[in-house]
Amino acid sequence: MKPIEELQKLVNTELSKISYPQHPKNLYMPIQYILEGNGKRLRPLLLLLTHQLYNDNLLLAIEPALGIEMFHNFTLVHDDIMDKSDMRRNKATIHKKWNENVAILSGDAMMILSIRFFLHLPAHIQSKAIDLFTKTAIEVCEGQQYDIDFEKHTTVSKTEYMTMIRLKTAVLIACSLSMGALIAQAHPYDIELLYEAGIELGLAFQLQDDLLDIFGQQELLGKTIGNDIINRKKTYLYILAYELANAEQKKQLDYWFNQVNVSNNTRIQEVKKIYTQLNIEQHTNQQIQFYIHNCLNKIDSLNVPYNPKLILKDFIFQLIARKK
Amino acid sequence: MKPIEELQKLVNTELSKISYPQHPKNLYMPIQYILEGNGKRLRPLLLLLTHQLYNDNLLLAIEPALGIEMFHNFTLVHDDIMDKSDMRRNKATIHKKWNENVAILSGDAMMILSIRFFLHLPAHIQSKAIDLFTKTAIEVCEGQQYDIDFEKHTTVSKTEYMTMIRLKTAVLIACSLSMGALIAQAHPYDIELLYEAGIELGLAFQLQDDLLDIFGQQELLGKTIGNDIINRKKTYLYILAYELANAEQKKQLDYWFNQVNVSNNTRIQEVKKIYTQLNIEQHTNQQIQFYIHNCLNKIDSLNVPYNPKLILKDFIFQLIARKK
Repeated sequence: MKPIEELQKLVNTELSKISYPQHPKNLYMPIQYILEGNGKRLRPLLLLLTHQLYNDNLLLAIEPALGIEMFHNFTLVHDDIMDKSDMRRNKATIHKKWNENVAILSGDAMMILSIRFFLHLPAHIQSKAIDLFTKTAIEVCEGQQYDIDFEKHTTVSKTEYMTMIRLKTAVLIACSLSMGALIAQAHPYDIELLYEAGIELGLAFQLQDDLLDIFGQQELLGKTIGNDIINRKKTYLYILAYELANAEQKKQLDYWFNQVNVSNNTRIQEVKKIYTQLNIEQHTNQQIQFYIHNCLNKIDSLNVPYNPKLILKDFIFQLIARKK
Repeated sequence: MKPIEELQKLVNTELSKISYPQHPKNLYMPIQYILEGNGKRLRPLLLLLTHQLYNDNLLLAIEPALGIEMFHNFTLVHDDIMDKSDMRRNKATIHKKWNENVAILSGDAMMILSIRFFLHLPAHIQSKAIDLFTKTAIEVCEGQQYDIDFEKHTTVSKTEYMTMIRLKTAVLIACSLSMGALIAQAHPYDIELLYEAGIELGLAFQLQDDLLDIFGQQELLGKTIGNDIINRKKTYLYILAYELANAEQKKQLDYWFNQVNVSNNTRIQEVKKIYTQLNIEQHTNQQIQFYIHNCLNKIDSLNVPYNPKLILKDFIFQLIARKK
């Protein structure tokens, strides 16, 4: 049983040990480039943490953990093209550093490579693992499509938003949690329970992301505050605020959110003012606590050894207390 | 044992029977749109044709055949973005009919879905099938990257060109041929032999494509003649011509190939004139015959029943006599 720091090191070491063909350079260099970035490695860690609930030997679990990290990075590469993002984790995005074609194609290669990390599993586990993984991967695409579609909607309901982030963010986190158990050949009941716990964690994680964007501290976050407001992204905060606002506040929110003739800074400050009036930070934190509570309840009801469960729960606490 | 026409009908019927979720529309409608196009269905047909060399029951082979067709169409969708192609099979390309983001994302979904068509196979076959398929898929990405890279090279050698088309075109055809045998649990020797036959066929197929682009008949081809010259694509014909040309012909070829101040029609006519002087059509046809000869030799040495082998060989003859 390994503590979190050791698992983190393990993931980073194994990621850096992946060997790529020398050619074509423009296909493989971008893959190395993005995987060298200092990501949180959240998904592979969750996979390893749930695997060691059932099996101390991580040998079978490492490659699938890398596969899920590879897949996650593929989604970042393609999302960054679609969102026209220039920077990611303080580095130029692939389509900026190279070009859009390179980003499309190296993303495609990452997607395909991610599957190949499952091919070392014994055949009977492999089939189930690839089924879960590809089902999840399709849902992530659906989530991204809803996210793009919502940009053109004048209003997005809370239900629509939660459906979108469930697909775009939560299912891959759920897949990671349950994959660790699946590979360890845990009971189907546990695999399912960990999936459900992962959905709750994923929703909490995304709301936390929405919250940090405006209520986080810039120096800790390492990126500009208020990006979502700058990009007029209808996040959980915005949707909740619009739901709770009175007629006058709604008018103000509409005005500042969509205003084009003032500086972004003014727009951010004015929207934040309305969020503060409506206690959006507190409401969102309550919702996050609700999901985390559900997540931990599900984990608690797993019949697994105390110590590795504690490590998993500790990681979830860290995650939700994160400042970046 | 089914004749080609029946297999063709089967592939088209099964493709049209694939059911997609209703939402998100912008993810799934483009997939249906491109798969409704009247493709040749070359790859799924080859898979079914080699499968029935070993097993008359096509039940296991149909889904992987659809998976390979889905994957092939994914490559078309992403290649069309990269090549900025507006039309494909007489229809607007997805990034033109919708937009680039829709084309990236529905392409991604097609790539992932293509894997899911292998999940009904028994576990021990499935693992080998997905291994072959994803290995091939990565190579196709490598081929596309070389193709893009070559646009910026002033010269491309014949060896470089053959490496590129081997990856971009031939390996997927080889994968299709050997996959049929793999799923039928043929002897590894046969699976390998069919792979090699597929490489030869794939190279012949691509040279045929290069040839038809300029020596084909527009009314049969259903697209403009000389596209490769318009786009200054260094095809087999161009590379061969440059190899065979004397100093004066090289100068002429350089001049007309790269000229920007004359109509495309003039450029096409002048380049074609040089090709004709150098007997490029005949030389290329000879090379195609060479690859087809190798391909058929390999197929002949398979110890399989006469009739289904005849159907496969007949299809290869049809393919190489094609006018479009």
